[in-house]
Amino acid sequence: MGFPEVGKQLEVLLAGCEQVYSVDELAAKLEASRKQNRPLRLKLGLDPTAPDIHLGHTVVLGKLRQFQDLGHKAVLIIGDYTAMVGDPSEKSKTRPMLTAEQVEANAQSYLSQAGKVLDTSPERLEIRRNSEWLDPLTLADALKLASKMTVARMLERDTFERRFKAGIEIYIHEFLYPLLQGRDSVAIKSDLELGGTDQTFNNLVGRDLQRDAGQEPQVVMIMPILVGLDGVEKMSKSLGNCIGVLESAHDMFGKTMSLPDSCMSNYFELLTRVPKEEISQLCDPARTHPMDAKKRLAWTIAGAFHSDEAAGRARQEWEQIHQKSAGAGSGMVVPEDTPKVSLVADLMQDGRVRLLDLVMECGFAASRGEGRRLIAENGVRLNGKVMADANEPVAVQNGDVLQRGKRRFVRLEVP
Amino acid sequence: MGFPEVGKQLEVLLAGCEQVYSVDELAAKLEASRKQNRPLRLKLGLDPTAPDIHLGHTVVLGKLRQFQDLGHKAVLIIGDYTAMVGDPSEKSKTRPMLTAEQVEANAQSYLSQAGKVLDTSPERLEIRRNSEWLDPLTLADALKLASKMTVARMLERDTFERRFKAGIEIYIHEFLYPLLQGRDSVAIKSDLELGGTDQTFNNLVGRDLQRDAGQEPQVVMIMPILVGLDGVEKMSKSLGNCIGVLESAHDMFGKTMSLPDSCMSNYFELLTRVPKEEISQLCDPARTHPMDAKKRLAWTIAGAFHSDEAAGRARQEWEQIHQKSAGAGSGMVVPEDTPKVSLVADLMQDGRVRLLDLVMECGFAASRGEGRRLIAENGVRLNGKVMADANEPVAVQNGDVLQRGKRRFVRLEVP
Repeated sequence: MGFPEVGKQLEVLLAGCEQVYSVDELAAKLEASRKQNRPLRLKLGLDPTAPDIHLGHTVVLGKLRQFQDLGHKAVLIIGDYTAMVGDPSEKSKTRPMLTAEQVEANAQSYLSQAGKVLDTSPERLEIRRNSEWLDPLTLADALKLASKMTVARMLERDTFERRFKAGIEIYIHEFLYPLLQGRDSVAIKSDLELGGTDQTFNNLVGRDLQRDAGQEPQVVMIMPILVGLDGVEKMSKSLGNCIGVLESAHDMFGKTMSLPDSCMSNYFELLTRVPKEEISQLCDPARTHPMDAKKRLAWTIAGAFHSDEAAGRARQEWEQIHQKSAGAGSGMVVPEDTPKVSLVADLMQDGRVRLLDLVMECGFAASRGEGRRLIAENGVRLNGKVMADANEPVAVQNGDVLQRGKRRFVRLEVP
Repeated sequence: MGFPEVGKQLEVLLAGCEQVYSVDELAAKLEASRKQNRPLRLKLGLDPTAPDIHLGHTVVLGKLRQFQDLGHKAVLIIGDYTAMVGDPSEKSKTRPMLTAEQVEANAQSYLSQAGKVLDTSPERLEIRRNSEWLDPLTLADALKLASKMTVARMLERDTFERRFKAGIEIYIHEFLYPLLQGRDSVAIKSDLELGGTDQTFNNLVGRDLQRDAGQEPQVVMIMPILVGLDGVEKMSKSLGNCIGVLESAHDMFGKTMSLPDSCMSNYFELLTRVPKEEISQLCDPARTHPMDAKKRLAWTIAGAFHSDEAAGRARQEWEQIHQKSAGAGSGMVVPEDTPKVSLVADLMQDGRVRLLDLVMECGFAASRGEGRRLIAENGVRLNGKVMADANEPVAVQNGDVLQRGKRRFVRLEVP
């Protein structure tokens, strides 16, 4: 096959990186790879306790895809061993012990989502489970592994340092996890490990352990953390500021449009392949209207996970809703994939249904209290018209559209 | 059989203790032991990398013997597992990895020395090796064990705290050793663990792990550290201020006599069974001459490890030497077990030998320079007479006695 020139590869690979340990070592590895016609092995660990991937995760996956497109091989490591051991400290309920079946199901879910970004052909992707090499280890092996690292160095790790200074307890087994991750690098003979900034410490441990095992240490490539839709916090499921890779084109487009203008260039750079010069032009308000730039961004993101066509439809829907909600209540455009809700006969009386019952039936609120507040804040429309009285018996017909806020629609089926 | 009343047992057992966690728990255990007619199980860990026992170690062994004499059972744990794993950090040469044979040989040496203090009958002494329960443990077990303890708590341990503050490296496996020792307590269902003050932290870890395993936590009984013959540092082989349990009655007596007066009551209390009231009397200079008290101490210690008769002879020898060296040079008394040195014919000329050659031949100095200094300082006597000229050809006859300082003698054999 033959790999592209090292300089050309570096130009692609270094774009958007936060930090590389080190660029010289990467260049040397690329050079050797060309000479021996051997693809580099690129390690990425995945956490099988959290199978949902959002755009924050795709920053690293996208970089991995660039390596694959240049002819290199991604090695995904499913951390099934530690997931099955669980976090043995009783305190933390956040890392429960998983069964082998749960781990496998989560891993499959993760892989099918990652497959939307990665090249999944066998010559470009290898999938390993770390129980393969960790399960046979004994207490004596654990002691030897633990002897490779000092307490002081472990406490330099940002998360440990913060917790230690704040008096938040760190359990001793937590000091062993970075060593187990590092051991993974030795087991798969990793050439380079990818991660977010929060993985820097762990990935550097891998270098140490490889050196100790007589291997050439892996390059560590750190990608920046993607900011969430709020433009402030990092994108995270628990903060509710994320776009999942399984979301519809409609939702991806709409959510991206809610991003602050100031974050656009960051998203362009980390999530799309739009060339640098074009990004500069798009993100310069003197040359491109921010609304147009953001529509381009939203279209590009939705298109990457769906088709260009679906992305186009999503844009159209968004534009129509956005225009309408700014104007009167009429002329509302309902998205194609609007779900249907069949009203049961019990709820109806003389072709009417109480507005609050209707809102609850459509799942617009988790409690009747929340439903009342929603209505009181003018958050509910029937066929585009704001409905403000929760107790009002409303006349409904087959095909009527109930709307919550700007973007959520339900089409009613009346018996 | 039946155990003595709890109050009587406590009176004996609490004497000389530095700290007990806790006295109430000990009383409760003694009470239960009496009711169930069940001996308490008393854990003592021994280090098979350092088989030489000195009087400092016998403080704890002596307390263990008191428990045995009351009907309880000592459980000695040979730490063969960690000794065979060794200290895996490359830096420390002080804890080398031992073979199973070395560990066993060291353990046997330790046990034969400890047998001079302990009751070694099978119903009073159980000997276990911790490889029995540690060898089967896996990495997963190690993670679970490590999750029982926090980093902050481990760093409170005095030795770790000092090293951490001084910037001396602590390796992570060192945090696992206290947990392994604690695991030993669970394995043997220890009722009480004995140790010196430097073991307090480790022994308390055993309590935590037993509680975690659903066992009643062991009582921790801490004995004071014995000060060495210098009266300042703790007794330790490397400081050269100790009396080994394998030393002769002569040496035990003589070394004890070199102890500062101020340490006498401490030695009486920790190393002998002389009643408290008698110790008070012996150590009160108004009631007992310190020299007499110290002779009693030295005689008691020598007698405990040898016979009363041997202790008596040692006292006699010491008194004679001590008296002579204070008076003129004549009437010198040479100890019975004085070693013999045969002079080779080459050294002699006309029945004479150069004094410096004689001193070197008898091994009184490590170098000729040291030999000269020794002679110049009047440190060498022949048949009780100070010899001050290193170059003097000295006439020697079979049976002559060469003396270095106050206590070292050699009997010459002339060809």
